Amino acid sequence: MKLTFSPASPFARKVRIAAIELGLIDKIEFVPTAVAPGQPNDDYSRITPVKKLPVLILDNGDVILDSYVIVEYLDELAGGGKLIPASGATRWKVKSDHSLLQGMLDSMLLCRYEKMVRPEPLRWQAWADDHWNRAWNGMARFENQPDMLSRPLDIAQIALACVLGYADFRFADCGWRKAYPKLDAFHERMLSRPSVKISVPPPA
Amino acid sequence: MKLTFSPASPFARKVRIAAIELGLIDKIEFVPTAVAPGQPNDDYSRITPVKKLPVLILDNGDVILDSYVIVEYLDELAGGGKLIPASGATRWKVKSDHSLLQGMLDSMLLCRYEKMVRPEPLRWQAWADDHWNRAWNGMARFENQPDMLSRPLDIAQIALACVLGYADFRFADCGWRKAYPKLDAFHERMLSRPSVKISVPPPA
Repeated sequence: MKLTFSPASPFARKVRIAAIELGLIDKIEFVPTAVAPGQPNDDYSRITPVKKLPVLILDNGDVILDSYVIVEYLDELAGGGKLIPASGATRWKVKSDHSLLQGMLDSMLLCRYEKMVRPEPLRWQAWADDHWNRAWNGMARFENQPDMLSRPLDIAQIALACVLGYADFRFADCGWRKAYPKLDAFHERMLSRPSVKISVPPPA
Repeated sequence: MKLTFSPASPFARKVRIAAIELGLIDKIEFVPTAVAPGQPNDDYSRITPVKKLPVLILDNGDVILDSYVIVEYLDELAGGGKLIPASGATRWKVKSDHSLLQGMLDSMLLCRYEKMVRPEPLRWQAWADDHWNRAWNGMARFENQPDMLSRPLDIAQIALACVLGYADFRFADCGWRKAYPKLDAFHERMLSRPSVKISVPPPA
């Protein structure tokens, strides 16, 4: 299997951590891939028209996306019910937490594009503020949700580590550690896992 | 159960169609909800910090998101394997098709915000073009994928109907019917379902 990958993508990082935790990392070849908003990439458009990272390309050529579905696929390959509970109320809790975190990451990327990629005279502060607030309010939600911070490893916890790592990577001065001390402690515990530690984004 | 809803949201439409097809529509109370980019909505932020439509609020207060996870939840309530195949290669095909369509919708909304909502002097043509091309190239992918257009009803087909309906709603002059005649025929067939017909967005 091949995974389109960039060390800067929090979505690709999530899949990488999951693949390590599921014992499947050795079956995946990483294909370095770069996409930039506002710029065509015809080669990658042919693989996935929405041009998002990552996608998983199976040996028969089938393409699996998005990052969440890839983790579901890998989880099933590993026997099922490992990072996504197979049944019960926890299943929907983990899935919904993950969707919220996915939306937070989407908003953080939109905020970064607005503040750092878009031509400077075209920036709209209200848009950047709105998307930053979505991520920031999402962090507050998890700060006050003790079960999320203490239950066995799941895909939502991995996504939360990726959100916090992305905050360090692209919004280094945002002050999340001071505002959210329980998330800080959670993040430190997550960093004790080699999968999380090895995948920290390189300095921006 | 309560569903936050707007007739203009293609994500809410997808859930509405799925709920009708699964025979669960009578169990869901629609809660009219309005969100606008760049504008706070504190009440809705308390329900879901990322402020996206729709979310499903269960009778015990649990909140399920996003639209895809809601459909998975409803599908399971209806017995499972109805709109999302329960196993096999088709399962990953339908899920990946759906993720692609979800990304296309995200791009269409970003394109609309750029061209119609953002203050006019702050618009960036390359960004709008990039996101429109993602949706347009995605339509081309499905135009050339006959199995998608003929297999039994699934969540990806519902999402494709929502993509095409959203193109009519917000990009009425884009010419998708002429460019993609097989999608046009598919869309006409989908409109023969009451669930699809009743949920067509109102005139913009």
